[in-house]
Amino acid sequence: MSLKLTILGCHSATPRVNAHPTAQVLQIKNHHFLIDCGEGTQVQMRKYKISFAKIKHIFISHLHGDHYFGLIGLISTFGLLNREKELHVYGPKGLREIIELQMNFSQSRVGYPIVFHELNSLNSELIYEDKKVKVYTIPLKHRIYTNGFLFKEKPALRKLNIDAVEKFSEIETCDYYNIKKGKDFINKDGSIIKNIELTFPPPKTKSYAYCSDTAYYKRIIDIIKGVDMLYHESTFLSDRKELAKKTGHCTAYSAGKIAAKAHVKILLLGHYSNRYRDLSAFQKEAQKAFPPSILAVEGRTFEVG
Amino acid sequence: MSLKLTILGCHSATPRVNAHPTAQVLQIKNHHFLIDCGEGTQVQMRKYKISFAKIKHIFISHLHGDHYFGLIGLISTFGLLNREKELHVYGPKGLREIIELQMNFSQSRVGYPIVFHELNSLNSELIYEDKKVKVYTIPLKHRIYTNGFLFKEKPALRKLNIDAVEKFSEIETCDYYNIKKGKDFINKDGSIIKNIELTFPPPKTKSYAYCSDTAYYKRIIDIIKGVDMLYHESTFLSDRKELAKKTGHCTAYSAGKIAAKAHVKILLLGHYSNRYRDLSAFQKEAQKAFPPSILAVEGRTFEVG
Repeated sequence: MSLKLTILGCHSATPRVNAHPTAQVLQIKNHHFLIDCGEGTQVQMRKYKISFAKIKHIFISHLHGDHYFGLIGLISTFGLLNREKELHVYGPKGLREIIELQMNFSQSRVGYPIVFHELNSLNSELIYEDKKVKVYTIPLKHRIYTNGFLFKEKPALRKLNIDAVEKFSEIETCDYYNIKKGKDFINKDGSIIKNIELTFPPPKTKSYAYCSDTAYYKRIIDIIKGVDMLYHESTFLSDRKELAKKTGHCTAYSAGKIAAKAHVKILLLGHYSNRYRDLSAFQKEAQKAFPPSILAVEGRTFEVG
Repeated sequence: MSLKLTILGCHSATPRVNAHPTAQVLQIKNHHFLIDCGEGTQVQMRKYKISFAKIKHIFISHLHGDHYFGLIGLISTFGLLNREKELHVYGPKGLREIIELQMNFSQSRVGYPIVFHELNSLNSELIYEDKKVKVYTIPLKHRIYTNGFLFKEKPALRKLNIDAVEKFSEIETCDYYNIKKGKDFINKDGSIIKNIELTFPPPKTKSYAYCSDTAYYKRIIDIIKGVDMLYHESTFLSDRKELAKKTGHCTAYSAGKIAAKAHVKILLLGHYSNRYRDLSAFQKEAQKAFPPSILAVEGRTFEVG
């Protein structure tokens, strides 16, 4: 099973006609996770054919406007479209108050439940888990309380080697589930058929880490170690290293350094400052530290696996 | 002096790629008044070349999201662009709390003063006045507290009839201002030169009324009587008359009726529901009651005078 990331916006600060603020949709194990929700996200979702109904979980990194000003509009639109399905919103403490205040003044309650999961821990924590996926926070270093998010597939069941299984007459269909879970099979006479004879290993699990906004921050390296894809902000190039430091942001080079130290497979750069016209310079700079660096592009889907 | 209205968005409810929620800019006597500010307004302003720096007054009709969700983003962008000029925001009580709450959580104060003028009167009131322009509220009938806005030029000075003036040797340049204000000229011997001999009438004043959102509401007729242009919402066609009534909106036909009763010069229709594909039906329906009805179109500038 592959993992797909669609970029709806990958620019910093002020939205422009072809440069939208942060929002992305991660498809992982039948989930469609919306990550950040800058102004105009709902229009970008329509433009890039992201189904509104499939969004059940929204993750907000921090309360700077370019990461969440589109949320109240999206929540309202879900209501106008008569959504009934529960929506889960994960984000910093305060987000619930902001959304509810606006809903109260509009006097138009939405017809579906919104469950807010407000975050305030400074340590990485497990915030979502089901049979197939786990989501952890990645505490970041920015001007205000900010989290990245780590999305990990859980190991799937082992694959049945059907040719091998059929050789053993005592194994019945109802035994398959335990065998796929990795258990050995015990014949009636007490003899054991080793699981390894009956199954193939499961497909490799995939993982994705989202880190925006943040200064260069070594503490994340252990958390994101070895992920298949890392989205890491690179607001500036090294020509504005001091400005990056002052504003709690990263240069493309330091994003590359983090990616190299964490031994990730691919680095996806984004959150570009509007000061730069030629984005290819971001890739070149990051590649000095980490060659498999690529650029996030609005509307493009990146696939892993 | 003409009056220019640029439509940035004229659709109701949910924003779409080519159907933005309400926002418009009125140019009147060197002012650029922004009226309502749905999500995406700042991008529409860039697209249609509206200078950010010229916006000093923003008028918000009511606290349904399609009329104000773009305001916090615009205010933040003004800050990022290092605006220093004061900004005046006129809107229902609650708007200040909503904006300030979000600014507090972002911990990034803007570097310019924002003056909120919170409205809660149920009667029409004068909310802005300078030497050349007056702005009044137009209380509307909607599901929540809502105002339209009436923009009126003040009469200009009379125009000097320079050929006539030069015939009278006692009149000096320093007398011109009083003559343009309409005063007669008194010669040293006490004889009077009537003002009408020395001046032409001033150019006719222009006026614009903005009414959205509202049900059919006779009380506005006296307030908007004779305006040069009336923007009146027409969310639905008559096929959905009951829905219009239930939701506090108007049909194109009833917008036309209001325009006819108020003897306005031109009716501009807008706030179209996304249910309709062919907008020309709105014009046809309104014209049954009021022939000079035209359609608001995104990105178009309408000129009066």
